Amino acid sequence: MRALVFDVFGTVVDWRSGVARELAGYLSAIGREDLDPFALADAWRRRYQPAMEECRSGRRPFTRLDVLHRENLEGVLADHGITGCAAGDLDALNLAWHRLDPWPDVLLGLHRLKRRFFLAPLSNGNIALLANMAKRARLPWDAVLGAEPVRAYKPQPEAYLRTAELLAMRPDEVCLVAAHNGDLRAARAAGLKTAFVARPTEHGEGQTVDLRAEDPWDWVATDFVDLARQLYA
Amino acid sequence: MRALVFDVFGTVVDWRSGVARELAGYLSAIGREDLDPFALADAWRRRYQPAMEECRSGRRPFTRLDVLHRENLEGVLADHGITGCAAGDLDALNLAWHRLDPWPDVLLGLHRLKRRFFLAPLSNGNIALLANMAKRARLPWDAVLGAEPVRAYKPQPEAYLRTAELLAMRPDEVCLVAAHNGDLRAARAAGLKTAFVARPTEHGEGQTVDLRAEDPWDWVATDFVDLARQLYA
Repeated sequence: MRALVFDVFGTVVDWRSGVARELAGYLSAIGREDLDPFALADAWRRRYQPAMEECRSGRRPFTRLDVLHRENLEGVLADHGITGCAAGDLDALNLAWHRLDPWPDVLLGLHRLKRRFFLAPLSNGNIALLANMAKRARLPWDAVLGAEPVRAYKPQPEAYLRTAELLAMRPDEVCLVAAHNGDLRAARAAGLKTAFVARPTEHGEGQTVDLRAEDPWDWVATDFVDLARQLYA
Repeated sequence: MRALVFDVFGTVVDWRSGVARELAGYLSAIGREDLDPFALADAWRRRYQPAMEECRSGRRPFTRLDVLHRENLEGVLADHGITGCAAGDLDALNLAWHRLDPWPDVLLGLHRLKRRFFLAPLSNGNIALLANMAKRARLPWDAVLGAEPVRAYKPQPEAYLRTAELLAMRPDEVCLVAAHNGDLRAARAAGLKTAFVARPTEHGEGQTVDLRAEDPWDWVATDFVDLARQLYA
């Protein structure tokens, strides 16, 4: 194994808290503190898979996630009776996804893993999103990969296979690290190694999905520091 | 201006010395110390533009530079009567382009520039090449871009324009830093800002090209530290 590639939203960063924080600021600015920013963050995220599915199915050409997020934001706000927003304000709010904080173990874990492995995100986020996030949070990636350079959204097999090809590695030289069993299933089907890291509060306190490894993944770790410990053993 | 993108071979790294060093090791191993490794490095490099031109012209689909380098290596060796080499040896020798050292001002200059700007290579090198080089030399890129993600070789306009698009920036928010006037001309024609940094020994002591800025570029610097000084003024 030579490279570790990482799911990002949920696995590396706490998207829900970060997006809710930015939404709370906007709701306050427009006098809509009656709305729950966490509920709005969840609603925004619920439109994520259906929007990508339009591209996966071929009904729409590959479209970067920033564009899908921006469309989905307008839809979510309209669902809550918020319309006529200034386009510039929504452009700025859409960058909430560029300004997410990593879970507490991430920086230490990545710095340890970087000494032995090539590290890159393999996220459905676009390059600008992932690179801006990395610069702000100081994530020490060796390259910024993901759906955009390979023009395929996970869990399409091409997303995993073409990423290995960009790295000039065989699929089994690459390990996907993810908090989502479905992502790992698709990576394994494409020939990658797999590592599960539980993120039991990604969806808040009442989370019911992805609380544990559902298949015998190659590694199962409590966090990135634990993963580094297992991989150096 | 928000991002600086860099030509790499010649501008960031001293490809000639690095490639000659690796060739010298190989020539020694096969008992051909009679050949000049610098002359072979130059011959290898002379096949670079014609190989890319096959792709630019559409006669050949976009092919990553590692593949072109590998083909060109066999051609150069054959020109010097060296045939029947082990494929694995040539694969390893081809990675000479992944193991190049930066000019002495590069690391300090990039670290200073990174505090204010988004930094990425915009090289004809492929992602694995550029990322392996960066990991070895500790080049602090914010993202690894270049010909491969945009599937166009400089000086095609698409190489510059699609790179700005991947960064989600307007072309005039991006500045190309290069030691080559021709690269800067193409970048300016595409709407990018331009910065010239002289590398008067890229081609050895007798260099006759690109010794000075041939057009009024937006910035003309003696090295990356000088460029950082000018951009912070």
